[in-house]
Order: sequence, then structure tokens, then C-alpha cells
Amino acid sequence: MRNLTLLTDFYELTMMYGYFLQGKTDEVATFDLFFRPYEESNFCIAAGLEQAVEYVENLRFTQDDIEYLRATKAFDDAFLSWLADFRFTGSIRAVPEGTAVFPYEPLMIVTAPICQAQLMEAALLNIINFQTLIATKARRITHAASPASVLEFGLRRAQAPDASIYGARAAVIGGCSSTSNVLCCQMFGMPPKGTHAHSWVMSFPTEYDAFKAYADTYPDGCLLLVDTYDTLHSGVPNAIKIFDYLKANGHKPLGIRLDSGDLAYLSKEARKLLDAAGHTECKIFASSDIDEYVLQSLKEQGARIDQYGVGTKMITSHSTPSLGGVYKLCNLNVDGVDYPKMKISDNPVKVTNPGVKTVYRLFDKATDKAIADLMCLADEVIDESRPLTLTHPVERWKTKEVVDFYAKELYTDVFIDGRKTYAPQSVYELQARCKSGLDGFWDEYKRLQKPHQYKVDLSDKLYDLKHRLISEEKKGVRNGI
Amino acid sequence: MRNLTLLTDFYELTMMYGYFLQGKTDEVATFDLFFRPYEESNFCIAAGLEQAVEYVENLRFTQDDIEYLRATKAFDDAFLSWLADFRFTGSIRAVPEGTAVFPYEPLMIVTAPICQAQLMEAALLNIINFQTLIATKARRITHAASPASVLEFGLRRAQAPDASIYGARAAVIGGCSSTSNVLCCQMFGMPPKGTHAHSWVMSFPTEYDAFKAYADTYPDGCLLLVDTYDTLHSGVPNAIKIFDYLKANGHKPLGIRLDSGDLAYLSKEARKLLDAAGHTECKIFASSDIDEYVLQSLKEQGARIDQYGVGTKMITSHSTPSLGGVYKLCNLNVDGVDYPKMKISDNPVKVTNPGVKTVYRLFDKATDKAIADLMCLADEVIDESRPLTLTHPVERWKTKEVVDFYAKELYTDVFIDGRKTYAPQSVYELQARCKSGLDGFWDEYKRLQKPHQYKVDLSDKLYDLKHRLISEEKKGVRNGI
Repeated sequence: MRNLTLLTDFYELTMMYGYFLQGKTDEVATFDLFFRPYEESNFCIAAGLEQAVEYVENLRFTQDDIEYLRATKAFDDAFLSWLADFRFTGSIRAVPEGTAVFPYEPLMIVTAPICQAQLMEAALLNIINFQTLIATKARRITHAASPASVLEFGLRRAQAPDASIYGARAAVIGGCSSTSNVLCCQMFGMPPKGTHAHSWVMSFPTEYDAFKAYADTYPDGCLLLVDTYDTLHSGVPNAIKIFDYLKANGHKPLGIRLDSGDLAYLSKEARKLLDAAGHTECKIFASSDIDEYVLQSLKEQGARIDQYGVGTKMITSHSTPSLGGVYKLCNLNVDGVDYPKMKISDNPVKVTNPGVKTVYRLFDKATDKAIADLMCLADEVIDESRPLTLTHPVERWKTKEVVDFYAKELYTDVFIDGRKTYAPQSVYELQARCKSGLDGFWDEYKRLQKPHQYKVDLSDKLYDLKHRLISEEKKGVRNGI
Repeated sequence: MRNLTLLTDFYELTMMYGYFLQGKTDEVATFDLFFRPYEESNFCIAAGLEQAVEYVENLRFTQDDIEYLRATKAFDDAFLSWLADFRFTGSIRAVPEGTAVFPYEPLMIVTAPICQAQLMEAALLNIINFQTLIATKARRITHAASPASVLEFGLRRAQAPDASIYGARAAVIGGCSSTSNVLCCQMFGMPPKGTHAHSWVMSFPTEYDAFKAYADTYPDGCLLLVDTYDTLHSGVPNAIKIFDYLKANGHKPLGIRLDSGDLAYLSKEARKLLDAAGHTECKIFASSDIDEYVLQSLKEQGARIDQYGVGTKMITSHSTPSLGGVYKLCNLNVDGVDYPKMKISDNPVKVTNPGVKTVYRLFDKATDKAIADLMCLADEVIDESRPLTLTHPVERWKTKEVVDFYAKELYTDVFIDGRKTYAPQSVYELQARCKSGLDGFWDEYKRLQKPHQYKVDLSDKLYDLKHRLISEEKKGVRNGI
């Protein structure tokens, strides 16, 4: 396990030092990790919690780390000694991986002595932001490809090794069937996928020789890449000869892969050639700069593709390569008294929600479909036996009465007072959780373009607290002027 | 050191197995790692070689790896036993980090037994693609910010931990002065930078209290974040009170940081307030969604900013988050005989250059400025004493005669027959190399928009080889039909 304790912004350490000098180390802070509305998708698929938990569990400053920090000359000896015993003793609640989450809904709620909670900001954001970004993109891409399946092929274009490994993990949570990344498969128990490259073909005197050698290596499940020289005039005819040869020897070939050119046209023509040669059961795989919009277009054009390999556009979330999650202080408990906190900004999207909160997802009893989410203070109780009035988080005249519903809280306890209560699940269990969670939403919320807006409302108590703090702020209570 | 041997696409392993079964393990392949023309920049800053070398040095299949591969049932025992002794025994030439490289110019040239060279494809691309992408973006951003300096602040939005660490490293090679990422600074010997966040301010009863506490923690070099409540009516006035207090006690404050709002307007107004209060030496730092175009605009508007912190847009290369480098077979040596190889494609940008090659950068003796690059076969000799005729790589009627020049080969030996000859340099040495290399190009090649097209020509020998292979291919020599 890598020790990522110093994977933090330097200001987290200088603030910790300041809190230490100010005698604030016993103050208990609560931070919400959430994302703001974002152009790519109306909701995200939460991912990365397993790695976030590992990070928190392994937090400790080694002697090397402490000597490194001493050399920066920014800290005194008392603080550096105190760091040697630093462990996480707080509590974390989080939405399980694979859960659909909406803007402003915390993915994690960290409650811990302020120095601990502060230190973790940058690493938790780094871990959760990226995997959530990729699981979200993978959800969109697999949605567009369906019923064709999607393999993750992005290792070579991922942003450094971790991104390839954890991005592939997140892509499978979001719906991909597996990945070509062998290390990721080894780490997370998935079957690695792949066949051969153009270089294989080029390393033999002819394409036919190359296909023959590959078929002799893998006579069952043989998949041939047919676009090295000329897909329809060389690649597919050579593949057909090989498939004839394999079948004559009692083997079952798998199919062909297209990796360039006009995939709609080539797949239809290749399908005709394969069918005419009696290889109707052979599949057509395709890769080449694919994203959710290319997939929609291929579907419209009647492309005959059974499985896709998707690389760059998914592993980097190319169209929007950052999620922009933030980690904001929402409460400070000093000597047992709660002080709800919020960030106020001229920009309304940057205003945060104060207090220790929770979120309930409300479902219609008749259809089991989600109606809306309700963000409220953590101690509020939802009475399912009575109608509930939802109110728009800003436009308070917009209300909706909900009846015959049940409410599910989105969070589980991950750490309680420093003790880990998190139980990891396999990526395929998380994928299944993602799928069944999405089945709880009407299709209108899940379409790729201009989806219907899902309601995330604030309870009256939370709304009132927020507006009390805003008016105190306007009176200049906090800026000290 | 992490073992990244299984950081590979599964097809590299299935091809290795096929080469093994076909008795091709002694064939020596040469692969070029290069990028194609790309929208973001006319040239790239090479980066990532140090990590690529570490990866190659540490290549070995552990017993766990071998058992994992056995469990996939894709390989036989003879091959798996052979993997246990697998080491890199080949040679690698590469452009040093910090060098400006143009499309099609190899960043690395790998010559090794085909199984070795094939295995490394995905990981080398992953490592070199990403760091080169970020060094290139950082070059653009620091160019636009100059003479203001730039700090790398992207940890929380980087695509997983490695991207934050190696991206920050690459950003410094490309021109940033340092990073906030403490682990990166520890690993690569850089001074970590940062002060405090909004949460610091929010954790105190008032902004003034928070500033006072921070100033007491770091009385010298105190830098205050002034936008938590109201930059001009609260933040800057409170900072001025603190700076007065610090100076009265013999300390030297550093300045303020703006992190939201209209940076052009706020920086000019803040400058006036600071100057009017006698703090003319206090600096203004700014962060908030900055890229090279925002920097150009701030400069045009006369913003008064001394240093920038740049996060998301640089660490993800947000506008173009992948470089698209490729790794293409260019030669196969079988029993001592060279067979130059090339990929032919309907799409001219995807046609590769065959043979074992090198690149010379030609400089004008009078100005020491680069004139053009010449890609040629590795055994060609450049005679600096005679005029040299350059010819356009496609439009052969476009020629240019070069006189009074000197030629520098771009490559150094990194491995020779498995022995490492690479000597690492510090990131600041690489940054200096980048800067002095860029000084060798006229400004017209370096501007951000519509830069002048730099010439990368092919020698006649290389051109003739390429076109001989293309005509053989057209005759169907290789596709076996």
C-alpha cells in the first residue's frame, strides 16, 4: 500500500500548523465533498470510495515525511512531534460507489478534528473527483452503446498509470464489461481482454501469414484485426479464409475487429462478407475514437457492431476532463456546541449548504421510481405515513406534494470514531448496484441530451438555517469590519 | 519502486505468446514513439523520460504476476517459465526531457527483441503521452503569464494521484516555478508552496481573527486569501490592518491572494488600496480557473497580478486532455537483415515513416536560431561544410537551400543492449534545458495562436524508402491476397 499522506496541498499543512498553534486541535469540523452543476451530465455515478478509504486508513507521517517537513522550515518541533502520532480518529459517511448523485449532494461527509479533516481535502478530492468523472462518462457511453457491450481500452492515453488503473475500475462500475489493462484486472479481479495489434500483422511477411499464426496461437475465440492494409479487400477476405480453416479443424472463431475508417459502412459491408461466407455467428468488434455521440450516430446508421472498445474519450472524459468536486466546511463543533458554516459568494452556484446534513431519495410506492431527493439536516426524520411537501431550493413558490412514497437515505457509515466500518465490494457488485440504482429512474432523467431536471430540494429547516446565516453575513457579523 | 510490468494491454501479452510460439523471439523490432499533428500546439515539450526509464529498468514478472497470467488460461507453461527470466536487453534512444519536438519526430526509439519491445508499448505511451501533454500545456501557460510566474495548484482536479505528482513535475519542466503538491515536492526536490484556504477563514469567528491568527503563525512572508466574504470591502481592508500590525512588529508581509471574481478589476482595485495604505511592496497572487487565454486577456486588461496559481486547466490539459502519441513498428531485423516497416492508411496523417531513423535540428550559425529539422535514416551523415537542400515531406517541389548551418542530433542513448546509460537531471535542470532550447526558436514559432509552421523535412533516402514500400504495398505484396 502506497503511503499518500503527503499527497496534499502545502496549505493544508500550514493551516494544520496554525490550528495547532491556536489551540484548535480539538475543534471538530464537518466537511461536505460534493460537485456543482456541470455541463456534461445532470447526475454523476459516485466512485472511488474504496481507494479513499484505503487512503484514510493509511494516513500517517513517516519519520522521512517529518524530516522532509522539518527541512521546509515552516513548522516547529512541537508540531512535528505531534504529527508522528497523527491518525484518523473521525467519522465518515458516504454514498456507496455506483450510486447516482446530483449536484450539491455530498458524496462524502467527513467529521473529524479540524487538522485531520483539513489534511485530507486534496487527496479525497483527487481520488473521488476522477473516479466519479470516469464512472459517469462510462455510464453515458455504455448507455449509448447498448445493447452492444463496451470494453475499456484507454491505458495508453490515460493521464499517468493510476488514471489508467482506477479509471478502468470506474469505467467497469459505470457499465463497461471489462478492460484491456492487465494490472487493473489483476488488482480488481476482472478478466483482461484483447487480441492483437497492427504491429503483429506488420511483423509477418503478409497479412494472411499473420492471421494464420494468430489463429494457430488462439484457435478458439480467434479475433482478427482486419484494417492493417485494406479492410474490405484484404483484411476481411483473409479473415474468412482463416475462419474456414479453423472451422475445418473443429474450432470456433470469434470474429473481426475494425480499428479505423468509416465504421458504419465497413461494419455493414464486413457483415455481408462474413454472412455470405457462412460465418453468421462471427462477431464484429470496433474501436477508433469512440464516444457517446459517435455511438448514437452509429446506431442511427444501422452499423453492425457487437462490441466496442473505447479508449481516449472515456478514460480522460475527453469532452469534460474534470469534475470540479469541492470540499467545504459546513459545521464546526467547539466544546460540544455546533456552529454551522457556509461559504457565501456573489456567484449563486458557489454558495454552499450549512450544517451537518443528509439526503433522502424518495420513491413512488406504485412504480418504485425515484420522485425527488430531499436534502435536510442530519437529525430530521422523514415521516413516510404523511404527505410531504417538497420546495424548490431557490424558488420557494415551487412546491410539490408527495404521497405514497418511501424514503431511502443515501449514506452509509464508512468510519465511526476512527474505526473502519466500510465493507468493500467487487467491481461487478458495484456495477450491479449502479445498474439497479439507475433502473429506479425514469428514462427521461437518463437520456444523454437535455435530460429532464431531477428535483433536489432543501427541507424547510435547512433552508431557514441557510438564510439566517446569509442575513448574519450581510450584517457583517463574520467579516469583522 | 512500483512494479508496473503488468501495466500493459492484454493484447501485448497475447502477441508475445504468439511470437514465442512462432519462434520469433530473436527478431529485433524497432518502434518509434511519436505524436501526430494535434490541435493544441505546433510543438510539444518532451517529458516523462525519467519515469519511462524507471519502468523499463524494473520490468520483471513476479511469481504472483506469472500465477495471475496462468489463471487467465491464455498461455502455456513454457511461455510462463520463459517470462520468469524476462528482462529488458535492448537499446533505447530518446530526446531529453524539456526538448521541443514536432509531429512525427520520435520521442523514443526502442530497439529490442520483439516481445520486449511489444510489451512496453502501452506503459511507455501512458507515461510519455501524459507528461509531454502537461509540459506542453505548462509551456503555453507560463509563456502567456510571463513576466508573472506560475505555480501548479492542480492536485485536487488531477486524474488520480499519479497525474497530480507527475503532472506537477512536467508542469515545472514546462516552466512553472513550483507546485502546491507536497508529495511531488518531496519526490523531486522542489519547494512546496501554499498558504491558507477559505475554510481557515470560516473556522474563526471573523475574517480579521482568522487573518490575525495566520499572521501570528507565519509573521514573515504572510500571504492572506481575501475573497472569503467580500474582497474589496472586507478582505483587502482586513489584510491591510494585519500588514500594518506585522510591519509595526518588524515583519515583512508578502501579499494577498484573489481566488474568485473578476481578477482584472479586483487586482487593480486591490493594488490601489494596498498602495494607498503604503504597502506598495506587497504582491498580488491570483488563482481561479486560469488558462493561457485568460492570462492573455488579463494582460491586455492591465491586471496587476504578480503570480498565478493554475490548477484544473493545466493539470488536465483541459482543452485537449490527451496527446495521442503512438508507438509504431518501423523496422524488423531478422537474422541480421533489416526489413523496414510502415503503416499505410487511407488517412495520410496516419501513414508512418519506415526504417531506423534519427532527427537533426539545423541551426543558423549567425543567429543560433533553428532553421528546420531533418528526419533521415540513422546512418546518414550531415555534411555541415556544404549547402544542404531541404525538401517538403509531401510536396517535393518545395525545397529550401540551407547554408552556414550546424546540425544537432536530438537523441541521446538511454539504454544500450540492456545497460542503462541514462543520467537523470533535476526538474530545474530540465526546466533550464527547456528554456534554453526554446530560446533557439524565433518567437513566431512560439506564439499561442496560429504559430508559423516549422519545417520538418525528410531526407531523400528516407523519402525514397517510404515510397518504395508504398508501391510494394499497392502491388499487394504484403496483404497476401
